[in-house]
Amino acid sequence: MPRAAGGRASEPIPDIVIRRLPVYVRTLRHLADHGVESISSNELADRIGVTAAQIRRDLSYFGRFGKQGKGYDTAYLSEAIARILRLDRRWDVALVGFGNLGRAVAHYRGFAPEFRIAAIFDLHQENIGERVGDVAIQDEARITEVVAGEGIRLGIIAVPATAAQDVADRLIAGGVTALLNYAPVVLRVPPHVTVREIDPLAAMQSMTYYLDD
Amino acid sequence: MPRAAGGRASEPIPDIVIRRLPVYVRTLRHLADHGVESISSNELADRIGVTAAQIRRDLSYFGRFGKQGKGYDTAYLSEAIARILRLDRRWDVALVGFGNLGRAVAHYRGFAPEFRIAAIFDLHQENIGERVGDVAIQDEARITEVVAGEGIRLGIIAVPATAAQDVADRLIAGGVTALLNYAPVVLRVPPHVTVREIDPLAAMQSMTYYLDD
Repeated sequence: MPRAAGGRASEPIPDIVIRRLPVYVRTLRHLADHGVESISSNELADRIGVTAAQIRRDLSYFGRFGKQGKGYDTAYLSEAIARILRLDRRWDVALVGFGNLGRAVAHYRGFAPEFRIAAIFDLHQENIGERVGDVAIQDEARITEVVAGEGIRLGIIAVPATAAQDVADRLIAGGVTALLNYAPVVLRVPPHVTVREIDPLAAMQSMTYYLDD
Repeated sequence: MPRAAGGRASEPIPDIVIRRLPVYVRTLRHLADHGVESISSNELADRIGVTAAQIRRDLSYFGRFGKQGKGYDTAYLSEAIARILRLDRRWDVALVGFGNLGRAVAHYRGFAPEFRIAAIFDLHQENIGERVGDVAIQDEARITEVVAGEGIRLGIIAVPATAAQDVADRLIAGGVTALLNYAPVVLRVPPHVTVREIDPLAAMQSMTYYLDD
């Protein structure tokens, strides 16, 4: 349910724009943290790896941010975009799969402070009861019940491809509407569910095309 | 250096098309492995999550693959696309970073058979000499020398954001021209180098936008 916050308010905002915004936030926060108070759209574009026109076009969906001749206020703009993305609160996340990848995700500190792994599930009985911080690994059979009970809206799928659809269905049945999918499979989900794929194999396979012999 | 293989041979092929092809290969291989010999563009589109028109348009860059009324030959088409992507050989890969994430990548079996982690580097002396299969972890100081010596063209960056640019520079100095970057930072690379970002945090941050309260 895209919402416009001022700017070209009547237009639906393309998902590709929404997908770029986190990199804007990250870059602007980095600049603000390093004492850079304002930046031109050209400089910002150079750091992000897009064009200045692209940045202006993306931001125009949400309002007017730059000042003629002064550029963007890094702290103000990063906060404004973070608010648009609803990153001004903390979101609980359910992680399914506790193999090598799931463990790396569970211990990854980069998701904080905006995301908190609030529940972890695995199929293997020997992992159940193990803890990551104060979160105990639970049986995958409990996914729907637990995410519904805790009101969790985001899920991370770190199980093998053959199990991923079933796990997605259980998460969605419990009320999850946003899925980060590490399994190399295209998930079938209802229209109200957003899926982002993390697909390192496809990324690698799309780079060899460009390699010389 | 995009190359066209028949089809609309004179047009440069958009990177977005190249990025979709691995999912075509994966889906077609899965079908062929399960005894499905041919598939209509509508059915294939449904499985991949794009439109049939998109598939026809993407494939038109490379030649004519479908037969009127018969659909696509799954085995033939998967092999043809794999060849276009140069996945008909094995590629050696250098992995830099051997923390939680690097370990998960090193042990991930999904990269085989097309990719082989042929060298692993880490900064931490206590990890150096440890082995994954027959590959011993080496000091990051040796990156350029080793990748040049072994002719490695692909690199995976699994180090913290602050170290990623330096690691990228060392890999590129050794002849690497394709980088899979797990670090949450935009790398600055020369035009002949392809970078794909694996950015789960940005993916998560671009989904909260769509969540209801």
